[in-house]
Amino acid sequence: MSDYPSVILEQAVNQMASLPGVGRRTALRLVLHLLRQSDREVEAFANAFTRLKHEIRYCRECHNISDTELCPICASTRRDHSTICVVENVQDVMSIENTGQYNGVYHVLGGVISPMEGIGPKDIEIDSLMERISKGGVDEVILALPTTMEGDTTNFYIYRRLQNRMNDKSPMPNDKCDLKISQIARGVAVGNQLEYTDEITLGRSIVNRIEFKG
Amino acid sequence: MSDYPSVILEQAVNQMASLPGVGRRTALRLVLHLLRQSDREVEAFANAFTRLKHEIRYCRECHNISDTELCPICASTRRDHSTICVVENVQDVMSIENTGQYNGVYHVLGGVISPMEGIGPKDIEIDSLMERISKGGVDEVILALPTTMEGDTTNFYIYRRLQNRMNDKSPMPNDKCDLKISQIARGVAVGNQLEYTDEITLGRSIVNRIEFKG
Repeated sequence: MSDYPSVILEQAVNQMASLPGVGRRTALRLVLHLLRQSDREVEAFANAFTRLKHEIRYCRECHNISDTELCPICASTRRDHSTICVVENVQDVMSIENTGQYNGVYHVLGGVISPMEGIGPKDIEIDSLMERISKGGVDEVILALPTTMEGDTTNFYIYRRLQNRMNDKSPMPNDKCDLKISQIARGVAVGNQLEYTDEITLGRSIVNRIEFKG
Repeated sequence: MSDYPSVILEQAVNQMASLPGVGRRTALRLVLHLLRQSDREVEAFANAFTRLKHEIRYCRECHNISDTELCPICASTRRDHSTICVVENVQDVMSIENTGQYNGVYHVLGGVISPMEGIGPKDIEIDSLMERISKGGVDEVILALPTTMEGDTTNFYIYRRLQNRMNDKSPMPNDKCDLKISQIARGVAVGNQLEYTDEITLGRSIVNRIEFKG
């Protein structure tokens, strides 16, 4: 499929196909769809992305995407600012918000530690998390990172840094020692048959069983 | 999923989700991927589509997408200009070119007649096809439209217009009467089991059977 009738068309297809999960055939279909739209619509399509790149900001507190310096969640007085849920990215915030089960605030790392991809602790928002906690007022940190090797590594790294803080001979022991560190429950997904659950998940769900409240 | 943390993000997601087959969840994933790219890359991405819309041209002969006034196929002296293959769109030209089985030229209608969608014969490139044929030098028109009701309608409409032309008491009977009109073969796809072929296709493949050349 290298014989495009036009270089301009081919470049548009190349750009579309650079998106993850978009093959060249789909890219061509999408580009030809755009070509059928009005000038104004294509302009709006293209502008949305340049505008995104140039104008998007990140909340100075939680590093979530935001139009304002402080995101609506961090700015809200109705949220529990003593609980910080640490997540990998923006989608995770939206997913947790959609559950309606969480009323604390977030901290978006913007990635997880991955030696394979050359992402170290300094490349993600861990230092800013520590800084935030050291300001005081935080009772609990919930680690809600992906249940992958990289997620586990990052969980453990953050846990150790928080432990080291708490063991410090500090002039403010009260602030530092009362921090609860938890992680999201892992186990059999709701509605799943046990026989279709992978062994590691099933094993963990037995080891980490919780008291039955009838 | 209406609680995007940013209006700019939401607009970019809306634009991405306006593409056919792209849901809002996928759109968000694609937009956040773009956000991780460099300014230059996002600029190139956006520019490819505005450039496409502003600079793309159509071959004045076959109406295929082209960077030049006459597309490479129409401009080629190595193609058989006496055979015109009528197709719905640009992808069809590319698909037939990829078979390596066709050496004639094309005519891209830019759609098929569809009363349901309000597309009539005047909305697609049928008049220009008639004009092209009336110039002479065309021996065969191959109808390669989709095997749908709309494709069949368009096939029949073009066939009738060509028939009317040929029946005209014309001062140049030779030019007008020798036109062969054919359509692509429909039948069981190569490599397919008969039991998995739909009844209409299988029925047609029996009615339109061809002589076996052992």
